[in-house]
Amino acid sequence: MSDFNICIAGLGTVGSSLINIIEKNKNKIENRLNKKIKIVGITAKNKRKKRSFLTDNYNWYDDPLKMIKDCKPNLFIELMGYEKEISYNSIKFAIKNKVNIITANKALIAHNGNELISLAEKNQVSFLFEASVAAAIPIINTLKSMIISNKIIKILGILNGTTNYILSNMTNNNISFSEALKDAKKKGYVESNPDLDLEGIDSAHKLSILTSLAFGLNLINFNEIYREGIANIELQDIEFSKKLGLVIKLVSIVEQINNKIRLYVKPMMLNKNSRLGKVDGVLNGIQIQSKDIEDIFLEGQGAGGYATASSIISDIYDICINGYSPAFGIKFNKLKKIDKLSVNKDFNSFYLRLNVLDKKGVLAKITKLFNENNISIETMIQNPKNMKIKNNSIPLIIITHKTYLQDINNLIKKISNLLEVKDKPFFMQIYKV
Amino acid sequence: MSDFNICIAGLGTVGSSLINIIEKNKNKIENRLNKKIKIVGITAKNKRKKRSFLTDNYNWYDDPLKMIKDCKPNLFIELMGYEKEISYNSIKFAIKNKVNIITANKALIAHNGNELISLAEKNQVSFLFEASVAAAIPIINTLKSMIISNKIIKILGILNGTTNYILSNMTNNNISFSEALKDAKKKGYVESNPDLDLEGIDSAHKLSILTSLAFGLNLINFNEIYREGIANIELQDIEFSKKLGLVIKLVSIVEQINNKIRLYVKPMMLNKNSRLGKVDGVLNGIQIQSKDIEDIFLEGQGAGGYATASSIISDIYDICINGYSPAFGIKFNKLKKIDKLSVNKDFNSFYLRLNVLDKKGVLAKITKLFNENNISIETMIQNPKNMKIKNNSIPLIIITHKTYLQDINNLIKKISNLLEVKDKPFFMQIYKV
Repeated sequence: MSDFNICIAGLGTVGSSLINIIEKNKNKIENRLNKKIKIVGITAKNKRKKRSFLTDNYNWYDDPLKMIKDCKPNLFIELMGYEKEISYNSIKFAIKNKVNIITANKALIAHNGNELISLAEKNQVSFLFEASVAAAIPIINTLKSMIISNKIIKILGILNGTTNYILSNMTNNNISFSEALKDAKKKGYVESNPDLDLEGIDSAHKLSILTSLAFGLNLINFNEIYREGIANIELQDIEFSKKLGLVIKLVSIVEQINNKIRLYVKPMMLNKNSRLGKVDGVLNGIQIQSKDIEDIFLEGQGAGGYATASSIISDIYDICINGYSPAFGIKFNKLKKIDKLSVNKDFNSFYLRLNVLDKKGVLAKITKLFNENNISIETMIQNPKNMKIKNNSIPLIIITHKTYLQDINNLIKKISNLLEVKDKPFFMQIYKV
Repeated sequence: MSDFNICIAGLGTVGSSLINIIEKNKNKIENRLNKKIKIVGITAKNKRKKRSFLTDNYNWYDDPLKMIKDCKPNLFIELMGYEKEISYNSIKFAIKNKVNIITANKALIAHNGNELISLAEKNQVSFLFEASVAAAIPIINTLKSMIISNKIIKILGILNGTTNYILSNMTNNNISFSEALKDAKKKGYVESNPDLDLEGIDSAHKLSILTSLAFGLNLINFNEIYREGIANIELQDIEFSKKLGLVIKLVSIVEQINNKIRLYVKPMMLNKNSRLGKVDGVLNGIQIQSKDIEDIFLEGQGAGGYATASSIISDIYDICINGYSPAFGIKFNKLKKIDKLSVNKDFNSFYLRLNVLDKKGVLAKITKLFNENNISIETMIQNPKNMKIKNNSIPLIIITHKTYLQDINNLIKKISNLLEVKDKPFFMQIYKV
């Protein structure tokens, strides 16, 4: 067996789990990889932090670049997670030094993937990232091989375990968003910048990667992904969705329509017994629709040290056994560009929650606005919970017939201007899969 | 681009679909594979059969061995589907001539896999079979990479689309087994030997393959897999399962307990909202439990020309891009043997349906036998549908508390001997996942 030398940068949950797995399963892994695995260098921000393995057993470096230069490893594993900065610099340096790359860093790929992946190809080093999307689910490799003979039409995913945990917790235990968020923070599920999870940024990073793989595209401009977050969802929305047999999930979707694609990340009310509707807690779920076969659905743990590290190990296997292959399954110069469809033309039913003054004539004003914007109302329920009236205002729930997102947005603007409407109106798409 | 020459033996639905896909997507596939794909020889039983492609466009051979000898291809794709005979002979001949192998033939692998796979390793040719289990679901590659760092504990699968179609049809449309079977035959879902599907043989072939992959084992002796078929399931069993919130599925399970494994294929009553319970129609579903991460669940089309052929294409990609790798992800001599646990010690609730004479004292005799065999009854319902009594006999449904399979078998033997019991008693495990 020849040696296979690895440097690891970033020793949080995932990096530490990776070292734990390699330590505990060394023989088994080496038998499978047919290589002697050696971790020749490690680095992280803080050497002194308490970790699940003995830092002293490894060569510590303060600087990832110096580590790569000194160790000349076969593989550099980047788990620092910055969108640019040292993550970007060290990967670029490693590639230029003919070192293979594995990373779990979706932000980095979504923003700098085109440059780094074409650089990797030029240097004929692998650039693998199975761990970057839906940890334990082998979605990257599945798409890479599916796409060869299948025309993928649409991907629907629950790609962020944190928001799914929060929404599931609100649904299963009838607690408020802020309570559920506090609990998720306590469990260590929330990123240090909570917006990454709550505003759908993390989901959009992952959606961007899946889009390139599934449609054979260059990574798109990240800002072109439409996003809505979950921070404005209230317990009463959850309760109301239950009455309708629906469940609220933060869903990431990309679909091809004619020769364009449309991508978006937003909370939606789904059928509670649909595949995605049943993805609970920290799980992720991905549904792939393609032209000639029935949907493929994959579900599994979407985050966590062990799950993510085990995807890294499967990428190590790939490099050791299979050698170089293009990062997106095809030569970089064969990846295509594609036009994006605006989400404004998306045609759906919507759920609206308004907070209105409890006085005569309010409903008339609101329904008039619906009329003027050509949006027809399917159901309207005033004060569905018979709440005590505070500040003279009560909730008003409205379900619309199918309409365009842009019309809803126009309507919301006008409704917001009514003096009788307190707070910002809240709306959400209903998606009955 | 260098040439990649392929010979195909077997031109039924899968073989024909494969040729269709390659013809229609030639450029795309060649771009991904970075090879010029050439189908240099084809063979099947009957040259004159009407097919979805023009036979005359290809070099036809009557004899697979002569085809391999003359064409000296890079790859031989075996889709004839015999357990031994010409499937076995031609694969063996190809391997000895350093030709890579792709097959969808689960019967062949389950029975002759050890010999053929070790022979392939000796000759350093690939032996790939993603298409042999759950067509469109990438289960083989998923297990190969999961197993490196995960200790798999249990796999539960719905692995046969035909039986799942029949059971779903009975459930969704309230039709009898024989009607559902007739419909499945009409749709071309049933193998020419129906027992392969109905008696769980096809499922057991697939379970055998998954077992080797998931636990790093030599293929086990096929006869050691416990099997029950679906042919004795009646519409009233389906109806009764619905009342209990359950659904009947033909489930294949392998689980590791201490250092032994237990495998079985049998119809079971599952929770209707469980992942497997919701796998409907011709779909397949596979749930993988492992020690350190949450369950992974994969669902997709389990049969059909396009779905199966697209898995073959992904194996072709693997050979073209990655070259040789061991068939089970590890060298053949590192595969282990393992002891099998008898299913007799399986401890579960059971559903029993007896056909008994409608006369005094019958219940007393039956409950006495339950007592003597230490099986306690949870529910007993006499003539649940208030059927008209024909031949003086009525159905008796019994749900037991948890008990051992061997005790149920003993009980059934004794009950069968009662003169008051007509027909063979029917029983089924209840599995509330």
